[in-house]
Amino acid sequence: MKKIASIIGGGVIGAGWASRFLLMGWNVNIFDRDPDVNRKVNEILGNARRSLPGLYEEKLPEEGVLTFCSSIQCAIKDATWIQESIPERLNLKHDVYNDILKYADKNAIICSSTSGFKPSELNNGAGAQNRIMVAHPFNPVYLLPLVELVFAIGTSDNIKEKAKEILFDIGMFPLLVNKEIDAHIADRLLEAVWREALWLIKDDIATTEEIDNAIRFGFGLRWAQMGLFETYRLAGGEAGMKHFIEQFGPTLSWPWTKLMDVPELTPSLIEKISSQSDAQSDRYTIRELEVIRDNNLVGIMRSLKLQNWGAGAHLNSIDKFLEKKEYEFDKPIETISRVVPLDWVDYNNHMNEARYLQAFGDATDRFMEIIGCDSNYISSGNSYFTAETHIRHIDEVLAGSLITIFTYCLVGEGKKLHLFHIMKNGDRYIASGEHILIHVNLDTRRSSLPSDTILNTLRKIAKCHSNLPRPDGVGASIGNKK
Amino acid sequence: MKKIASIIGGGVIGAGWASRFLLMGWNVNIFDRDPDVNRKVNEILGNARRSLPGLYEEKLPEEGVLTFCSSIQCAIKDATWIQESIPERLNLKHDVYNDILKYADKNAIICSSTSGFKPSELNNGAGAQNRIMVAHPFNPVYLLPLVELVFAIGTSDNIKEKAKEILFDIGMFPLLVNKEIDAHIADRLLEAVWREALWLIKDDIATTEEIDNAIRFGFGLRWAQMGLFETYRLAGGEAGMKHFIEQFGPTLSWPWTKLMDVPELTPSLIEKISSQSDAQSDRYTIRELEVIRDNNLVGIMRSLKLQNWGAGAHLNSIDKFLEKKEYEFDKPIETISRVVPLDWVDYNNHMNEARYLQAFGDATDRFMEIIGCDSNYISSGNSYFTAETHIRHIDEVLAGSLITIFTYCLVGEGKKLHLFHIMKNGDRYIASGEHILIHVNLDTRRSSLPSDTILNTLRKIAKCHSNLPRPDGVGASIGNKK
Repeated sequence: MKKIASIIGGGVIGAGWASRFLLMGWNVNIFDRDPDVNRKVNEILGNARRSLPGLYEEKLPEEGVLTFCSSIQCAIKDATWIQESIPERLNLKHDVYNDILKYADKNAIICSSTSGFKPSELNNGAGAQNRIMVAHPFNPVYLLPLVELVFAIGTSDNIKEKAKEILFDIGMFPLLVNKEIDAHIADRLLEAVWREALWLIKDDIATTEEIDNAIRFGFGLRWAQMGLFETYRLAGGEAGMKHFIEQFGPTLSWPWTKLMDVPELTPSLIEKISSQSDAQSDRYTIRELEVIRDNNLVGIMRSLKLQNWGAGAHLNSIDKFLEKKEYEFDKPIETISRVVPLDWVDYNNHMNEARYLQAFGDATDRFMEIIGCDSNYISSGNSYFTAETHIRHIDEVLAGSLITIFTYCLVGEGKKLHLFHIMKNGDRYIASGEHILIHVNLDTRRSSLPSDTILNTLRKIAKCHSNLPRPDGVGASIGNKK
Repeated sequence: MKKIASIIGGGVIGAGWASRFLLMGWNVNIFDRDPDVNRKVNEILGNARRSLPGLYEEKLPEEGVLTFCSSIQCAIKDATWIQESIPERLNLKHDVYNDILKYADKNAIICSSTSGFKPSELNNGAGAQNRIMVAHPFNPVYLLPLVELVFAIGTSDNIKEKAKEILFDIGMFPLLVNKEIDAHIADRLLEAVWREALWLIKDDIATTEEIDNAIRFGFGLRWAQMGLFETYRLAGGEAGMKHFIEQFGPTLSWPWTKLMDVPELTPSLIEKISSQSDAQSDRYTIRELEVIRDNNLVGIMRSLKLQNWGAGAHLNSIDKFLEKKEYEFDKPIETISRVVPLDWVDYNNHMNEARYLQAFGDATDRFMEIIGCDSNYISSGNSYFTAETHIRHIDEVLAGSLITIFTYCLVGEGKKLHLFHIMKNGDRYIASGEHILIHVNLDTRRSSLPSDTILNTLRKIAKCHSNLPRPDGVGASIGNKK
């Protein structure tokens, strides 16, 4: 029997909650007066279906059933979790809570998605039950793990544990806010940045795009993995957090922002920050944290390369600039010359087996560009698909090593392309990759003939390569040398 | 002939600049009075060598030569680029500039890494030459692309173009700050957050760790790819930026931060922000931006999974929770059941060929855990390495599809392990993966016998599987059915 989550308010946030509960195996009842709610929620749910399940290396529970309800009473029937996500107007929220408290199961957990109100304000006027808590999520709710959890005065330990457990079960990271405050924690930081950013725009210092670029090409990449304080711990160099505060402490009185109401950096506040930072991070040395940070940054930026976005798009443009432009056909074509990146190594500290195929696949892609099977050709509805691959792992290779791939075109006739790649690290033979590719029509998804231009180029290369000594291992079956 | 960059000040920032120039093929002269500068710079350079070259899909130019100099005069000889990164004390900087201006080549570009000073302050007292510009980078300088570039009054167009070009050549993203201001752009945003964060700690609302978690499990992930305004454009839902400002505008007068000196949100300021946001982002609809954002977030979080850090570590803990715990040996073992994630598809919009091997590699890893070749066993200095792989791509599979892998153990005797994986999507046969693995001693990196426990388990499974019909395609050579 699936549990029921009741979502009151089906905007961006409510629909995000609904999507997360559904995809994690809950049934969801949703109530919103907007006549267009069904379409809007289903668009967000569509986004969630395409992105959330693949986030995990394991299959998720079977998706729950989504029901649109015509009243709060109907929506909250038998609900284990009730989540209010209506606009930020306290009187509207109180009206909704009155209805919820009238009909909710006595064990139901009742939370508000409010960005700013405190539980004491939410419960004020909502009877003496003090049952409304804050569970403040972040858009997109179905992907971002953070949820700020602020309990009401008198919330029982039982409910506290149950709430944390349910949020973990639906994949979230509950952050307990121990002392209620306007806008909780994250939104206070966001509000500070927002206010400073408004000044920058008002004063014509920067545009919205320049501000976004100042974030996403710089500290945004750091914050995605370490946040503010752990990042600054490293900025102090070997001397760590205390050194950083000493160095940048004086700037608090400088006009580095228009937001000038600042706390005094007393010795006791410095001591408090340093000791909290130690408690948080001192299981690693600064050098270890630098290595962790660099691994993370490389991984994040390389994931953005794949999407050709932000810092990743910038790196791609530099690749284009570094790329070799001319190729000779009278010897095996040097299709790849690159260093093994940090995100390609595994627990054996050497290049993961899948990355051998990625490097060979990149070599094949480069070969494709050389023969004219480029992005224009693919846009015209044609491409090659790999049908078969045979890899021989001859030696291992570590992160940071230069690998070079030499490509032989053995057959390039009709629909069929037969490539043989040799991967080397200097003189060391690392691996061979043998591939059969078939030309396909991307509309029918069936095999088809390539363009004449491509066929002519392929014939030219294959003819050149037929004069080369045949590489060892071609056509071998697994476990046997040919 | 390599160009020369001169680095004055070899702390975290100066050493970061030195590393980036060196790895992008420049010679570097460095000057710092710290007797320990050589060791410190080389540690940062070590970090850079292990992380930067692999960031690119292309080989970088040959690394330049690093020279430690005993004077500014010696360090800046023949330098094309001179970068000052000494502490943030204006009188010290002026002393250094006097020396630099005395000896620098007349075409040399002279920049300061200052976090806060304006070019007019830097040039004040440094003669009438007005040659000092700001090139403010972000730690780690060798990885993060952002550099804020603030020209001096009267900087020539020629120097401006040359500066941008050089920064691009060494892989950076120069952000032009058109109007000089204390702390430029990014550090003003950082300073606002820093001030609010100090309040949160002083008032015992949150610890450094809680603040970092509030960032890295939530908005930090958004900022790494879109920054502040493009993110908020999406938060408004279909109605976009204007709706967002209307919704959250009133909070400017609320105590959502202690930093209360805010600009008034007049209609003209709202219009300015909305139109700048349009200019920045309206080539995409909100729905398209949502898809881009989700692709990026999935990629970023999955890259952090690989490092088992932050949001990625959290996702891994949920995988553990979802993981199947019991396996039956009397049929092919269901080692993998997962959805194809967004970062596994390529320009053909189907699972990239390398990810077939990643899925098969994951199936092999799961099989390893089942037979007791787990992290403890690997820590004891033993593991299996893949020697050979044969993949037959029988059908394509799109992002979001459920794939299941069934694993046959064909041989598990002595040092050798022979596995055969079948990948299915429902009833559709997607691919087969055949693998020969060899047990190795991780110290000698040579083949060795596995433990008796593992051998016994392997024999048991192989015996069970020998009773199953032999899967089609075992032992086939490439291009031929067996």
